[in-house]
Amino acid sequence: MKIDPDILYALLERWPVARLATVAPDGRPHLVPVVFVAEAGVVFSPVDAKRKSSTALARLRNVEARGRGSLLIDHYDADWSRLWWVRLDGVARVEQDDAALLDRVARRLRAKYPQYRSLEPYAGTPTLLVLRWERVRVWTQSGDTAPILRAVAPQ
Amino acid sequence: MKIDPDILYALLERWPVARLATVAPDGRPHLVPVVFVAEAGVVFSPVDAKRKSSTALARLRNVEARGRGSLLIDHYDADWSRLWWVRLDGVARVEQDDAALLDRVARRLRAKYPQYRSLEPYAGTPTLLVLRWERVRVWTQSGDTAPILRAVAPQ
Repeated sequence: MKIDPDILYALLERWPVARLATVAPDGRPHLVPVVFVAEAGVVFSPVDAKRKSSTALARLRNVEARGRGSLLIDHYDADWSRLWWVRLDGVARVEQDDAALLDRVARRLRAKYPQYRSLEPYAGTPTLLVLRWERVRVWTQSGDTAPILRAVAPQ
Repeated sequence: MKIDPDILYALLERWPVARLATVAPDGRPHLVPVVFVAEAGVVFSPVDAKRKSSTALARLRNVEARGRGSLLIDHYDADWSRLWWVRLDGVARVEQDDAALLDRVARRLRAKYPQYRSLEPYAGTPTLLVLRWERVRVWTQSGDTAPILRAVAPQ
């Protein structure tokens, strides 16, 4: 199933949470929920000041070792005819050097998430996980993109 | 952070959706939302009659090739003090032979999901993805398990 790029970007702008899968150096899958913003084929997810477990930076170690990521945006609904997901698979890397990019993404994060008015988008060294997607997969139980269009419709 | 096993099983019984990460034979991460039931250190997720994309069975190919899975249960909330996630990491396999197990899990799925009154828990050859977890990781923004206790409290 195809998704119109405008719809995809509207969804990425609207949807607050995604789940990010990476692969550890030992080959095991790793999975965390993330916040994010997107632009031009790339998703940015910050290492922010939310509390970190001891392995919170495993995602960074993993993309440095393996260079791949998969980001899932999905909606669960007790009415299964409304289920949908969108998955972005591609090349992942860690960004800590491009100050202009880090600043721009911080502004985008503050605009998307009011929570970043009282919490820093970056904790310590400004750090982004950057996923450049190579493939977009879309699934809906209904077989058309209507449930996704509802998700991006003005409320 | 530790979670009381009774709380963990109550959460697994209550929570309708999880995200499952596996690793493809070529080493790329793979990620899908799943429904599931759990018992005694094991999560079962069926290949049901919901619509499948052409790669819907990638998860089965992956666990047969790699034998590992990571299952994430999490709650997103605009109030970030209420964020939490629980992740089960372990050994994954495909089950198609144990008829008693397949029957028992089908009953559990019908009990948990009223949607399975009108949809078969299994499509075609009864098939379960089985994840035996070796590690439970728990994270909450608040630093205690209060947000998870709220999620399993009677409503």
